[in-house]
Amino acid sequence: MFNKMLIIGCGLIGSSILRGSIEKKIAKQIFVFEKSKKYKKSIKKINNSIKFLKNLDKKISDIDFIIICTPMSEYENIVNKLKKSSLKKCLITEVGSSKNKILRLKRKVDLIYSHPIAGSEVSGPNYGNSQLFKNKWCIIIKDKNTKKLKLIRKFWSKLGSKIIYMNPTDHDKIFAITSHLPHLIAYNLIKTAQDFQKKEKKNIIKYSAGGLRDFSRTAASNEIMWRDIFFSNKKNMINTIDMFTKNLNIFKKYIKNSNDYQLKKILVNSKRARKQIINLKQDVSKPNFGREEF
Amino acid sequence: MFNKMLIIGCGLIGSSILRGSIEKKIAKQIFVFEKSKKYKKSIKKINNSIKFLKNLDKKISDIDFIIICTPMSEYENIVNKLKKSSLKKCLITEVGSSKNKILRLKRKVDLIYSHPIAGSEVSGPNYGNSQLFKNKWCIIIKDKNTKKLKLIRKFWSKLGSKIIYMNPTDHDKIFAITSHLPHLIAYNLIKTAQDFQKKEKKNIIKYSAGGLRDFSRTAASNEIMWRDIFFSNKKNMINTIDMFTKNLNIFKKYIKNSNDYQLKKILVNSKRARKQIINLKQDVSKPNFGREEF
Repeated sequence: MFNKMLIIGCGLIGSSILRGSIEKKIAKQIFVFEKSKKYKKSIKKINNSIKFLKNLDKKISDIDFIIICTPMSEYENIVNKLKKSSLKKCLITEVGSSKNKILRLKRKVDLIYSHPIAGSEVSGPNYGNSQLFKNKWCIIIKDKNTKKLKLIRKFWSKLGSKIIYMNPTDHDKIFAITSHLPHLIAYNLIKTAQDFQKKEKKNIIKYSAGGLRDFSRTAASNEIMWRDIFFSNKKNMINTIDMFTKNLNIFKKYIKNSNDYQLKKILVNSKRARKQIINLKQDVSKPNFGREEF
Repeated sequence: MFNKMLIIGCGLIGSSILRGSIEKKIAKQIFVFEKSKKYKKSIKKINNSIKFLKNLDKKISDIDFIIICTPMSEYENIVNKLKKSSLKKCLITEVGSSKNKILRLKRKVDLIYSHPIAGSEVSGPNYGNSQLFKNKWCIIIKDKNTKKLKLIRKFWSKLGSKIIYMNPTDHDKIFAITSHLPHLIAYNLIKTAQDFQKKEKKNIIKYSAGGLRDFSRTAASNEIMWRDIFFSNKKNMINTIDMFTKNLNIFKKYIKNSNDYQLKKILVNSKRARKQIINLKQDVSKPNFGREEF
């Protein structure tokens, strides 16, 4: 597909793209730009044909595909460097989890925006996996440049993704509720449990198997990535937090007043969402009894 | 251990106790009292030595171990029936998730309270498993009757549980934060997502792999069981909801004001809880990339 491909930022997502691209022969030569020495050491072990760039300032004009996989707070800095090179024909994309805030970067370089819905609570290239994107959605933000859109579609398809086009506003709204709010809620629940533990001086963590542990997994996700997401999708975060709080107050009222009918209605209805999620193959139906035995 | 054992209510927990008790030869004869015809049909397949009781009114005085595994809202009714029989020597226990509210039943029959920390989002005897309690905590509420306590400890130990004694107030506080609040929050998040879907007329469920699906699993738990828990642990539920809401407002403020330092502090701290949970073997460290492939 490409002659020279450059991956900027090679953690969990970048190294999964790297592995997938090697496997699917996406480019004749793959370059990596990665600041962390520890990460570099791990990446070298993946394949000895990978070339490392020491900086983005030098002439990188002959690269025909660049994919930015750093936390979003580094985008501005990276794009400022890229715009110094002549990259008119180069396909440049990124994998950030929110879009509206980073749209302005398009004025500097001809960015195509994509968002693979894949990841984990762990970070770094050691956890990368060439199959990470297989059968997962990849959202591509609509663009006038149909030629580049076609090319980026082909790229993600080769890694196994199912493609869907969206406008940035819909994207940011949808993932605020399906991904960003759930993460924030998980962080907030763990914070509340920690406060409770401090206040009550009881080792509650010991009994976390009854529900808390599932949230702790989500709340162990990378803090830089999630800070960037919360800040960059601010308006939708505030909106969904308000919706959540409003519902929580209603829930509390039903408990307080022992409102059997209304409370049961909420509990029964949520089962429907679960069925939809399983039908849409977003999760497996196999019941969970507390992940594998120890 | 026992001559005649009676399991009242034979769903996921009851049938797991049934299976474990057969395997470990807990009693010479096991009786089951179960209202659901569908459940009875499934239970018959487990073992053809199981005897079904048609009601609890008839003389059951020669039974020496009774374990109540129905939703807590049925306890009062059951205990009223049990007290008509002469069960002075009989060991009677139950497996409810909150204790303070059901303590008063001790005036009617000599109940010993236990709470195995095990379960799933699915219900019914088809999902039962003799290993469900293996290496899981079982909380036993302290009691003056040390002879009965010793016996109940032996019973749960035989099923593989690790035993811990607690007073009912501590129990209800601890499980409000480690189990009841997480479930309520999951239900509330799914409700909020459903409201959002209705309002925005977008198929958001389709994109639930980014976080929402994990909550949907928890929120698919049995509605009768959870209604009973929320109502019976009312005071602690309201208290923990208030703590959660207070923290959520702070979180929102940090996002609104782009308070980098404070926000990152929350996100980093939650990783510590995750480490503790793994160290205490309440979850496995193996990362999750979205449960098995489809």
